[in-house]
Amino acid sequence: MLDPNYIVGFVDGEGCFSITINKHKDKRLPEVRLLFEIELEESDKEILSRIVATLGCGRIYQVSYRKHPTWHVHSKLKVSNFKDINEKVIPFFTKYPLQAKKKIQFMKFCKVSELMKLKCHLDLAGIRDILSIRNTT
Amino acid sequence: MLDPNYIVGFVDGEGCFSITINKHKDKRLPEVRLLFEIELEESDKEILSRIVATLGCGRIYQVSYRKHPTWHVHSKLKVSNFKDINEKVIPFFTKYPLQAKKKIQFMKFCKVSELMKLKCHLDLAGIRDILSIRNTT
Repeated sequence: MLDPNYIVGFVDGEGCFSITINKHKDKRLPEVRLLFEIELEESDKEILSRIVATLGCGRIYQVSYRKHPTWHVHSKLKVSNFKDINEKVIPFFTKYPLQAKKKIQFMKFCKVSELMKLKCHLDLAGIRDILSIRNTT
Repeated sequence: MLDPNYIVGFVDGEGCFSITINKHKDKRLPEVRLLFEIELEESDKEILSRIVATLGCGRIYQVSYRKHPTWHVHSKLKVSNFKDINEKVIPFFTKYPLQAKKKIQFMKFCKVSELMKLKCHLDLAGIRDILSIRNTT
């Protein structure tokens, strides 16, 4: 297991809390998702496994860039499951707060998670609210 | 002050331990230097100041990229003073070890520091040894 403060430092540098809003052609409403990700060169995959073990969630994927064959293959830790985001990722970084400017990204992420618990992402007015949270600087 | 494990996590992601060997036209021998650096967007400068305060060394510089005017201005924390490297940076990361693959970079950095204490960087054979440490994978 890693020290939680180690993970906070690592994530302040390399982590990403995203709010994605994608329109699917066969769905009426855009789909809102929260993603927590860390992407590193594949040679650093072991530290991702240890972060997964400490957080208690997340999967690791291999990422290659077909358009850039000279780029190194990457490994990506990804948490996209809403339950894991809510019950593991958010409580972890609430207990052990981010210290750098990534905390602003995390605050928006938490706000959207609250709206999603209230099902606001399932109508257009709610999606607009989520968009405006995401796009504020 | 920041938790030391936070700094270890941050540096495992964003830090750099370099061994530079530069030839100056007015000097007979190339100059060997050890550098510890962290470079971030300028908007994240505050965390660099807190790392400086916790480590007890380092200076922060503004870095702009004339060739890439669209790139954000960066801030760089830099420790280049050999005494600070030896008495502060190396003891810190020896007490609180790096966990990701950056620990290999750090091990080479420590080896070269030992050779520099023995003044090996002041003759050509020693510089060759340092080069071979730096270039091993």
